[in-house]
Amino acid sequence: MSADDFVVTPWNVEGDIDYDKLIKRFGTQKITPELLSKIEKFTSESHFMLRRGIFFSHRDLNRLLDDYEKGKKFFLYTGRGPSGHTHIGHLVPWVFAKWLQDKFGVKMYFQLTDDEKFWTKKDMTLEKTSQFALENALDFIALGFKPENTKIIIDTKNIRTLYPIAAEVAKRINFSNTKAVFGFKNETNVGMIFYTSLQSAPCFIEDMPVLIPFGVDQDPHFRITRDIAPKMNKPKPALIHNIMDSPEVVKKKINKYAFSGGQPDIEEHRKKGGNPDIDVSYQYLRIFFEPDDKKLKQIHDDYKSGKMLTGELKQILIEKINKFLTSHQQKREKARDQLDKFLLKD
Amino acid sequence: MSADDFVVTPWNVEGDIDYDKLIKRFGTQKITPELLSKIEKFTSESHFMLRRGIFFSHRDLNRLLDDYEKGKKFFLYTGRGPSGHTHIGHLVPWVFAKWLQDKFGVKMYFQLTDDEKFWTKKDMTLEKTSQFALENALDFIALGFKPENTKIIIDTKNIRTLYPIAAEVAKRINFSNTKAVFGFKNETNVGMIFYTSLQSAPCFIEDMPVLIPFGVDQDPHFRITRDIAPKMNKPKPALIHNIMDSPEVVKKKINKYAFSGGQPDIEEHRKKGGNPDIDVSYQYLRIFFEPDDKKLKQIHDDYKSGKMLTGELKQILIEKINKFLTSHQQKREKARDQLDKFLLKD
Repeated sequence: MSADDFVVTPWNVEGDIDYDKLIKRFGTQKITPELLSKIEKFTSESHFMLRRGIFFSHRDLNRLLDDYEKGKKFFLYTGRGPSGHTHIGHLVPWVFAKWLQDKFGVKMYFQLTDDEKFWTKKDMTLEKTSQFALENALDFIALGFKPENTKIIIDTKNIRTLYPIAAEVAKRINFSNTKAVFGFKNETNVGMIFYTSLQSAPCFIEDMPVLIPFGVDQDPHFRITRDIAPKMNKPKPALIHNIMDSPEVVKKKINKYAFSGGQPDIEEHRKKGGNPDIDVSYQYLRIFFEPDDKKLKQIHDDYKSGKMLTGELKQILIEKINKFLTSHQQKREKARDQLDKFLLKD
Repeated sequence: MSADDFVVTPWNVEGDIDYDKLIKRFGTQKITPELLSKIEKFTSESHFMLRRGIFFSHRDLNRLLDDYEKGKKFFLYTGRGPSGHTHIGHLVPWVFAKWLQDKFGVKMYFQLTDDEKFWTKKDMTLEKTSQFALENALDFIALGFKPENTKIIIDTKNIRTLYPIAAEVAKRINFSNTKAVFGFKNETNVGMIFYTSLQSAPCFIEDMPVLIPFGVDQDPHFRITRDIAPKMNKPKPALIHNIMDSPEVVKKKINKYAFSGGQPDIEEHRKKGGNPDIDVSYQYLRIFFEPDDKKLKQIHDDYKSGKMLTGELKQILIEKINKFLTSHQQKREKARDQLDKFLLKD
């Protein structure tokens, strides 16, 4: 995927067709209404991120659910590259993973890849990424996970557990594979070349199949994992992809262009109406802050008709964000005392 | 170095000129009589492996000794790839390292690279290389090391200590570097590509300069270490190389060709004399089993003159080997109880 012909962010999506293209390019499966019904059979309720296509694509989710129905347990795994503080977009797969965990009653692993961010960011030190890993862990815990069934892996801290598994993976991947999948060059450092083995490792940490909810940009890593899994006599990981968050782009747009789907002035907005599909505030509500479909539809329709002004839409979002952040900060502070219970002991 | 124009083994060396060539190719320094005198200043005695050119080449040993004279301590590091049981040839740098340790009173690290041998040997499992690592460790301990100043590192077991250091190294090496130094191809697995970072890691485990006695075939790894050390604000490791041991070749020759420097029959041997320089038994005595220069010279001269027959020379070696092995096996059994005290705790 080259950047100029294809930009996928949840903040400026040009129709659903982009994700259909991405599905074709990546060779993944679209999440169909049939699959949604199948999930609901187990969860009793649907999740707004599924209904709204925030999670839009998958690999082998049907197989995983069929096996689950036959009594075969699975576990969940997701993660984060700790290159800075947590953004709202990072929380999308974590919140969804929490819901999956509650509904299926399964174990969850959360990987913080401090080694990767050290290798990929020129000026980043390992001390810094390890610090960010602990900060990010607090945001994760604050979402309500329980230490009884949730373990946090920090690559450099849990390397004793990860390394022998990563070694098995690494023996089965060559430089050509990483060139083809990641576009690595001769100038790529050997840490980055090795790293994908580490991201694969948690897939094989339990002797049962894994389901990985995550941003679709990470799919190439798990394509490699799925290729080599049979050679390790392991089941291929099942994947469920959310649309990519690109917080940097969002930030830039909000700050620099005050990007909205509204019209230049109130008179015109009342007459022509706004475009929620490209409005950043509306997208924040859709993706994260307004789980209630009815309320979201009301906002959508009111904005589109011109009844709701851009300022009013922004006000709704600001209130939602403030409410979330106040509560999140409290939970995050409480998480400090719990952190040690979550860290994988190896 | 291509195999056809240049074969270096301690068992069939075509004159000293080979090692001079190797020194030129690798860009190392020859160990001069001046350097030998300098070493003797600190050790009070010389070592037969130095006198006989078993250790023939170095990098920065002069610098290390100058610094030592000014009060700057160093530590020792060597290792072994545990792909099988220990051969006599493997003991050469370990015996020499023990002597250095005793003479300089310094700390010693011994690395067992179970990950490397798993990655480089197609049919080898990680379980197998980890087992060999423990077996090899017993042979090492049996040479008389003390757990107070000697630590054994097994890569997969001590990865928590090694990995953050290896990560710093890995960020500073790219695929081109490994192509140039090791001849890696696109088909090389990513474990092997990453691995040199792990072999570098013990060089930086202590906050002081390191001296590494080892077989010259491992020099490429430490050439990389020396290149990146200044970028990590660390001193370049000092190296001292022994001539390569190639136990497979030796074994093949002894078994298949009964390779000796003797003449076809006794009459001819008595008349023409033997050639100790290409005789495997004599080389074993020179390199390992006969530290006494006078005794070795007597054997050399008697064999060369035809006074000593091939069978008699072999008998001397067999007695030496049997004596060594009997004692070594006893020490090796005792080492089992000591093993845990030697393993690095991280």
